Amino acid sequence: MSSSTVDPADPVFRLHRGGKLAVASTVPLTSREDLSLAYTPGVAQVCAAIAADTRLADDYTWAGHTVAVVTDGSAVLGLGNIGPHAALPVMEGKAVLFKQLGGVDAVPICLNTQDVDEIVATVRALAPSFGGINLEDISAPRCFEVERRLDEALDIPVFHDDQHGTAIVVLAALRNAAALLTRKLGDLRVAISGAGAAGVAVTKMLVAGGVNPEQVVVCDSRGIIGPHREGLTSAKAELAELTNGDGRRGDVAEALRGADVLIGVSGGQIAEAAVAGMAPGGIVFALANPTPEVQPEVAARHVAVVATGRSDHPNQINNVLAFPGVFRGALDARATRITDGMKVAAADAIAGVVADSLAPEAIVPSPLDPRVAPAVAEAVAEAARRDGVAR
Amino acid sequence: MSSSTVDPADPVFRLHRGGKLAVASTVPLTSREDLSLAYTPGVAQVCAAIAADTRLADDYTWAGHTVAVVTDGSAVLGLGNIGPHAALPVMEGKAVLFKQLGGVDAVPICLNTQDVDEIVATVRALAPSFGGINLEDISAPRCFEVERRLDEALDIPVFHDDQHGTAIVVLAALRNAAALLTRKLGDLRVAISGAGAAGVAVTKMLVAGGVNPEQVVVCDSRGIIGPHREGLTSAKAELAELTNGDGRRGDVAEALRGADVLIGVSGGQIAEAAVAGMAPGGIVFALANPTPEVQPEVAARHVAVVATGRSDHPNQINNVLAFPGVFRGALDARATRITDGMKVAAADAIAGVVADSLAPEAIVPSPLDPRVAPAVAEAVAEAARRDGVAR
Repeated sequence: MSSSTVDPADPVFRLHRGGKLAVASTVPLTSREDLSLAYTPGVAQVCAAIAADTRLADDYTWAGHTVAVVTDGSAVLGLGNIGPHAALPVMEGKAVLFKQLGGVDAVPICLNTQDVDEIVATVRALAPSFGGINLEDISAPRCFEVERRLDEALDIPVFHDDQHGTAIVVLAALRNAAALLTRKLGDLRVAISGAGAAGVAVTKMLVAGGVNPEQVVVCDSRGIIGPHREGLTSAKAELAELTNGDGRRGDVAEALRGADVLIGVSGGQIAEAAVAGMAPGGIVFALANPTPEVQPEVAARHVAVVATGRSDHPNQINNVLAFPGVFRGALDARATRITDGMKVAAADAIAGVVADSLAPEAIVPSPLDPRVAPAVAEAVAEAARRDGVAR
Repeated sequence: MSSSTVDPADPVFRLHRGGKLAVASTVPLTSREDLSLAYTPGVAQVCAAIAADTRLADDYTWAGHTVAVVTDGSAVLGLGNIGPHAALPVMEGKAVLFKQLGGVDAVPICLNTQDVDEIVATVRALAPSFGGINLEDISAPRCFEVERRLDEALDIPVFHDDQHGTAIVVLAALRNAAALLTRKLGDLRVAISGAGAAGVAVTKMLVAGGVNPEQVVVCDSRGIIGPHREGLTSAKAELAELTNGDGRRGDVAEALRGADVLIGVSGGQIAEAAVAGMAPGGIVFALANPTPEVQPEVAARHVAVVATGRSDHPNQINNVLAFPGVFRGALDARATRITDGMKVAAADAIAGVVADSLAPEAIVPSPLDPRVAPAVAEAVAEAARRDGVAR
């Protein structure tokens, strides 16, 4: 657990002194001539042109390469609902990754409200300054409605990273794990533990990527989700309809019985005995951070491939593999939204970077592998054009 | 007038290609160790500390040195209500000036609403990411309510530059013009043409700086403002109460009769005959841009000192002399608001930079004079401490 003590000499606090971002001017300003071009009176020509054709803002403002990283501070890392001020260091870190890996300019926007209507109204209001909206660390189920309403209202990409970033990297990792084990995605029986933002998105992404939804079983803290469950949120009701073709009921151990794949996105601990009930030669992605649902060395006794969300274990499933390239590609294509096709293309591109060198401890690239974001960007931009959402 | 044609070879469009700003990362990100400090898991320590004490965000996030430049695009330059997308190049230019002159990181936020309640709600919602709010190019009278409500709601400085930036520089220029002419501010009879955002703020600022309100006459497009006028907005009603001790009525020529000072902040043209009615040895600031209320060479036939808002004439009254230093000083002092004392201190500091070398064509520093912002910042921070608004 994190302590709330400030030790200014601690490397973490030293690094964070003054924050991690700055705004840079990309034009000179040393003469009156510079001033008259970058500011009045010259700038008025650019303003008038954009007023006549708003699309020119893509080319003649920073909006064409800039995204807002928006949070309400309600579900930050493992810390939970810590509010907007305390969330800012994470959003700044995200912006650092956007810039250094994807060449995307990102501005942290931490909202002083957790009301869905107010979040939607605020992001709609500030959207003209940006080319995309990356939603971050907004708790379920509010995150689903926020994203859906903004996606409908705005003509720029809206992407809730906790859902889709995670889902894209999970699909990439599963593709490579299946390839390594010479299994087909459509044949795998998959148990997903966790039906929050990530669990819902992972389920849909895997289905979009070729997993048979009938062979997927999703659990929340009350057990397996299916038509037998009452009082489900709309996101979970959708899962109940889509998945669990066998109509299983019970706890996570029941979900794991005979499963080829376990994907943990909940933080709820899973007993070794339950993992032992999986089919032989399986796959475990235990993604809770810092404490995986099952310790990787324990999982390794029962399955062939293990991945976690931790940087100190092999096979780190980290959405930094996805979001810089996804937005770089979406901005390059001037995409108006992010389609499922773009997400699947991103997953395939991530998987492709290490496809020729697969090993049980190397199914995904390292988070800082510089080959990843450009490959993802190219695949995403191409998919945007294919899906007809490029401007 | 500006044309709305795009000529990509035009220096203005060439300069604006891709916008004028970028977000820079101020920390390294080349190793897993870097990642674990700037992002997970290290960042969680900083988040937890700020969650326990929000004030730590001043030191450990970029909010301590970053302001939002917020507009609704309703009153942009001389272009008027051109909307948020078309306003963005001006806000980017402002951010360039903030950075290069004041070392302040500024983020343009162009709002897709012109409703006062929505503007206030949006800015309140996004405030946790910033250390100050610079309001810009919001039309009167909405700008007064927006600023007042945000100033009350937020514990960071809120500053409508079109009002106070202009007013500060006008006070600075008037101080130096009066000194040059060995006149006292309290003795001057002042006519102000224009009762929009700038006119209202200039009036109040001059009074705060020592001008006798009874000797100020303000005109709007219908003539002199006073108790005889009906249906005044609340801002103008306040001026009617504060100014015009003689109870004058009539047009701008009547306001100018015997006046020592004309300050034009309206764009409405003023005839030479009216200027000729001023007291001898007077002062004209004709600040409308690009077309001054009276051409400077015409005004010069009748008064001793002339200033305009134009870069191609001497004595350019440009709020770039104020806002970078004002926010730099406010952020340095961690001011919770901008007081009148801080504004007067800013004006005095601007005036002070050229006080030893006054001449009729040199009553204010050049807009890019690098001595100005540091002098203003120091004076503003000191005034913030004196006024008890420094944290």
